[in-house]
Formats: sequence, structure tokens, C-alpha cells
Amino acid sequence: MTQVNQAVAFLTIGDELLSGEVQDTNLPWAAVRLRRIGAAISELRTVPDDIESIVSAVRELSADSTAVVITGGLGPTLDDVTREAVALAFGLELVRIEEIEEQIRTYFISLGREMPLENLRQAKVPRGARVVPPKGGTAPGFMLDVAGCLVAALPGVPEEMKEMFDSAVIPELESRFAGNPVSITRRINTFGVGESDLAGMLTDLYGLTGVRYGFLASPSGITVKLTVDAARGEAERVLDREQALVEERLGELVFSHGSETMEEVVGSKLRRCAKSLALAESLTAGMACSRMANVPGSSTYLRGGVIAYSEEAKREILGIPADVLRNGTVSREVAEEMARAVRSRFRADIGVSTTGVAGPATGGEEKPAGTVCLGLSTAESEVSWETRLPGDRNMVRSIAANAALNVVRLFLERSLETRSG
Amino acid sequence: MTQVNQAVAFLTIGDELLSGEVQDTNLPWAAVRLRRIGAAISELRTVPDDIESIVSAVRELSADSTAVVITGGLGPTLDDVTREAVALAFGLELVRIEEIEEQIRTYFISLGREMPLENLRQAKVPRGARVVPPKGGTAPGFMLDVAGCLVAALPGVPEEMKEMFDSAVIPELESRFAGNPVSITRRINTFGVGESDLAGMLTDLYGLTGVRYGFLASPSGITVKLTVDAARGEAERVLDREQALVEERLGELVFSHGSETMEEVVGSKLRRCAKSLALAESLTAGMACSRMANVPGSSTYLRGGVIAYSEEAKREILGIPADVLRNGTVSREVAEEMARAVRSRFRADIGVSTTGVAGPATGGEEKPAGTVCLGLSTAESEVSWETRLPGDRNMVRSIAANAALNVVRLFLERSLETRSG
Repeated sequence: MTQVNQAVAFLTIGDELLSGEVQDTNLPWAAVRLRRIGAAISELRTVPDDIESIVSAVRELSADSTAVVITGGLGPTLDDVTREAVALAFGLELVRIEEIEEQIRTYFISLGREMPLENLRQAKVPRGARVVPPKGGTAPGFMLDVAGCLVAALPGVPEEMKEMFDSAVIPELESRFAGNPVSITRRINTFGVGESDLAGMLTDLYGLTGVRYGFLASPSGITVKLTVDAARGEAERVLDREQALVEERLGELVFSHGSETMEEVVGSKLRRCAKSLALAESLTAGMACSRMANVPGSSTYLRGGVIAYSEEAKREILGIPADVLRNGTVSREVAEEMARAVRSRFRADIGVSTTGVAGPATGGEEKPAGTVCLGLSTAESEVSWETRLPGDRNMVRSIAANAALNVVRLFLERSLETRSG
Repeated sequence: MTQVNQAVAFLTIGDELLSGEVQDTNLPWAAVRLRRIGAAISELRTVPDDIESIVSAVRELSADSTAVVITGGLGPTLDDVTREAVALAFGLELVRIEEIEEQIRTYFISLGREMPLENLRQAKVPRGARVVPPKGGTAPGFMLDVAGCLVAALPGVPEEMKEMFDSAVIPELESRFAGNPVSITRRINTFGVGESDLAGMLTDLYGLTGVRYGFLASPSGITVKLTVDAARGEAERVLDREQALVEERLGELVFSHGSETMEEVVGSKLRRCAKSLALAESLTAGMACSRMANVPGSSTYLRGGVIAYSEEAKREILGIPADVLRNGTVSREVAEEMARAVRSRFRADIGVSTTGVAGPATGGEEKPAGTVCLGLSTAESEVSWETRLPGDRNMVRSIAANAALNVVRLFLERSLETRSG
């Protein structure tokens, strides 16, 4: 599958990566970047801060790859030996770079701190290497051509690594992989049906245009991933068409693209419609409201809410009539009353509510664990739903919080349509 | 640092690990397990689902290591080639294991589904290998001794991998690493001071007994990690003493050990004291209450709360007097009123509140971003705090939610002390 002419090898360095203390996050990030320029990662090796292990890994990987990206081991202390190891691997000496030394001195002066002498180790690179100066931090990276292979050594700290990877490594690799098909992925985020139902709705689209389908399930919904390998402009065109097809098919199940969250979508629709929101939460106990408050500026449309976790609170704080509660606290009727009460108490345009059984079952529940009721109250209408969600306590609560925000989204989308229609 | 006689190499297999779609979580988990039996991971390699890449990685790693743990590539489809690659690497043929074939057939019958013929591929292992039967799923693992090196192949699915690692691999390795010093880590979770202050409180303890100190900061507080390398019994004894010293020094800053969360601690103390809790949240907008509701059984002590996100809600729902709000909604006085009001409305024993400025700053705020006020109201006393928290919007909100739960914990601890004193 992996072609030799697309091969980028990764070498990550550090005892802490092998002891389980730190998990590398640079590779998954870089992999997506590389696919976009027609490259792919052919192998990953992780070795300790040990000069011999690094030397043999660098030699072996550079013999087989178009590029080797090394991360870590560029710090100032004596256990950081990547500079020495790369020099040794290719029989080069280390040379001091005056500009970098100056930059490190200036950095410490700007912090008002004395520079430890050890930091001067960071101003050395193998002879012939091109220095990648640090934007933050003190560790410069460097790049070296060895028998047709680009060897790039970058700091392990993710912000520093990413900055240098984008500014220095990607431009170098772009020309080497020019002409290769690129691989681009788009994400369409849906909420409201399960993975197999969603996949079933799209079956007849598979394989028509070379677009690969992937599905990613989480409490936030199912994300449809569309990936295509093609020449750059062609890939975008194919994806534009495929995305339009998928979105037409899925209709209002689609709530956003890329990394946009449900609360961001609901927030921006509330703002556009100039509507305010209040929440009455039992099962979700504040999770839905807290999610809404994650969005900067949410105080313009978010009034607040009542967490009516106990039956007493439903009765006394929200004023739900005793006869509605007679058949239990988990029902569409209770959810409707909760939504109506919170909308009226908070004088909001929209009231939404959750009640349900999170589990684990203890035997005394009125309904099975996973039962969730939602209510929506607006000036125009009052609606409620009852459903059964899968998963453990936290998953049921998370999905229910999303479901509550989703009914608000659907209401707002439909009223935006009516307004513009 | 890594001794040869402690060397376990990891080989993870799968295109999806190199394309950035899936992040391996088995290694960090296994590393901790291995350290406890005196072993360490000396190298990680990740290769694609490609038979030649796997063969050469298996050969190279097994030549240098006490054990090679391989994960992934044991599925039923044709791209899963770990079985074939391991057999090829050591010149062995694949043999069919009847019991496993039977187990796979039974598994599909129990699901009421027809068994795809491809699944029978999973019943083959290299000749001479010991089969590790699957508990869930259909992929068996296998273990093989090659010239003094244990080669263990396990499924990549974390639950299946972990089950087999603990039940089959660890017992095999325990004898091979017997006599090695083990490495054990304990976690002491604190809340209430920053990392450098906490470290400063412990400085004179460092290095006295060979215990290594580490500090891990998150919105949930600072975790002190104590790690010792020693003979098994000795390690536990040294840690018992060190932990007692640290806890005496840190006093009520310590809220839990290991993986116990703040909400679990507060929940169990509320239960022991037979006290109920209600929350008035502005800044945290339900996050603190939702955290409390994460704990199964929380409905026995959690009454609920009011999310008074707007000034109007503070006035109208909680009934905070207009003159208290005249100087703004972020003040100790407002926090006290909120805690008192919610305690009284929900007829709870304890009321706790949050109000503050989450940021990002837009210029119109009454106080700087990060300003947080907390209030606590009980039958015995009313207390409030004002503090300034670091970080972005979500970090400020998360730390504030923790801080609110922490003041409840401190109140309950002190009243438990008084009762037993």
C-alpha cells in the first residue's frame, strides 16, 4: 500500500515516551499534513534518550526513506543527545551557530533570567545542516540532506514541533512529493441516527467516485469522513461534489463540518435568530447548559437554567403539578412541563429539558437505564420525545445533553427556513 | 539507562496508526504494567499492514530483546497478516488450531450470525506457538519462544489486548525479570495551590530515600507522583513511608489517591455525613453540578441547582437583592447570596456557588478575565472567596468547578473531624 516514493519515516526520541508518562501527539497531526501533500508515513520508531539507539535508527531509516522526521532530544540538558547522534550517524562534526547563540542569550535576557551555560549546547548543529530557528522556546531544529534523504530534527514540544514542521519541513517535502496524488479528508458531523443506519443511507454512493467513506462514533454523534486520493485540485472538486450529495441525502441530520461543535452551531443560530435559551436539566444535571457556556459570548443568548435533579426540585422549583409527577419523573409529559416552566421562569424564547434514567440499574427505577425524555417549549409550539440510549452512565448523559442541544438546533433551522422562505 | 536484561520491544501494526486515524493507547498502559514487574520498553516500532515490513521488524527486534510484544493485524480480513509474517520471520508454517476454530464458530452462533469463512484464518498460529484464546472478539493471540526471546502477538483492540497482556504475557515475563528492581508509582491528588508552590513545600524531602518526585498539572489540580525503583516489598515499604510524609506535609490540600476524582470524594463524604447539596452556578453554568451527577447514586445527596447565567436570573430566580448586584455580578457578596439562596430554595444542607469572568476579555467586563468568586452556605456558617485563575475560558471554568466542589469537601472534612474529635 505504502509506496516507496511516498515514504516519510518518523523517529521520536525520549525515555518518557517509552515509560508511558507522555503520549506522542505529533505523529497523528503530522500524518494528516503529509497526506495533503501526497506523502505518507511508512514507519515510526521510538527510542530512548540513548545515543547508540538513535544513531542506528537514524542510519536505518534514512537508507530507506525520502525523509526522516526526528522529534525530541533537542533540549539543553545532557540527556538530550539528538544533535550528537545525528552528527555521529553521518560522520559529521557539530558546529556552533552564532546567530542561534545570540538568539538564546536574547531569549533569557527578555525573561530577565540568567542563561544556564548548558543552553549553549542548543546552538550546535551537524556541519552542513540548515538551521530552523526557534519561534518560542530555545531549541532550534535543523535539516540535512544525506544521499537524497531529508533528515529533519525538530523539538518534541508539540507547539514548537508543529510550527517548524509547517514552516520548514512541509515546504521542503512539497517539491519532493510533487505530482503524487494527495489525500484529503473532510468531516461531516451528524446527530440523530446510529452508525449502521447512517451507513445504510449512503450505501449506494460508495465507490462511485473513488471517495472512501469512514464513520466515527462518539457521544457527539456520528462523523462521516470522506477521503479522496487524487491530484490536488481534482481532490477538492471530487470532494465538493461528494459532500453535496451526502449532505443532500442526510438533510438535517448534518449539524456541522470539520471541528465545529454542536454548541457552537446552536450558539450562532441563536444569535442569528436573536432568540434566548433556558434549560431545565434532570438527567444531564447541567451538562447541556455548561456546554452552551463553553462558547465565548454565550451570555448574550444563554439565560441559564434549573437543575431539577430531585423530584422535590421538579415540584418546588419548577412548579410541576403533583398529578403530572404521579406516574414518575421520567415521561414526555414531565419533560414538556419542565421545558415550559424554565422558559417562563427565565423569560426565554426557548426552553429545553432533559429527564431520564442514567443507570447503572439498581432495581428501583421506573424505566430501564438509558430511557431519556426531552422537551422543547417555544412561543409557537411544545414538543417532547422519548428515546432509549445505549452505553454507560456517562455516555447516556453525554448523548442526552447533545440531543437536547440538537432539538434546539432543529427548531432554529426550521424557523430560519420559514423566515427566509 | 535501559538495561538489556529489562528490554521489551513493542511492535504495533496497522496502516491506521501511521495515517493518524487511530492513536495507540496500548503502549502507555503496558509500560506501567511492565515497570511494576521490573521490565521496561526499550523500543517501539509501528509498521503498516505489510508483510515484508513486519517480517524484518520482528526479526530485528527479537534479536535484541528479552521479549517482543506485537499488537494488531490479527483480524479476519486479508490485510491482517501478522500471523503469516511471524511464521515467515522464523521459518515456521501456520497450523490450524481446532479448539479455536470451534470457539470462533460458537461465537458466531451465539450472535445468531453466519460466520464469514475468512474468520477461519484466525484459527491459525505458527507451529509451536502457545495459543491465547480470546475472551471477547474472535482474534486469538499467541506466544512463541525464539532463541530465548518471547514473541507475543496480541489483538490491537485495547480491551482484548489488555485482557491477554495481563492474563498471559505478564505471567510469562514475571519469571524472566524476577530479581530486577520494580518501578512503582503512587499518585497523590491535591487541589488548592499551584505547581511551583506545591513543589516548594516538598523540596527538603527530595532525594532522601531514592523516591523520584513528579508533578502533573491539570484543571483537576496538581498530582504528586512518587516513583521508586527497588525490590518489590521494599518499594511498597519505601512508598508507604514517603506517602505518609508527603500527606502530613500537604494536609488538607490532598483530596484523593490514584484515580479517585473530586466528585467521588465529595459524594462519599456527603453520604457519610448524610448531608444534601445544591449549587448556584453562573461562571461554571452547570459544570460543577454535572460533575457531581457523574457519580452513580448521586441522587441520594444531590438536590440540583440553579444556573443563574444572566444578571436577571440572579435577581429573579435566586432573588438576589438589587443593591447587592449594584456593584456587579462578580463579587464575594453576590457569591454568598447565591449560595444562601440556592440552599434555601432547594432545602439542602449545603449551598455552594460560582460567579466570575471566564474570558476572553472583550473590554466590557467588570473585573479581569479569570476572576472567580465562590460562596458556601451551611446551617453553621457562610463563607466566600475571591481568587484569580490562569488559563483560557475552558480552563478557568473547569478549575472553578473543581474549586466549588473542593470547598464542599473541606467543609465536610472539618465537620467530620469535629464529630469524631
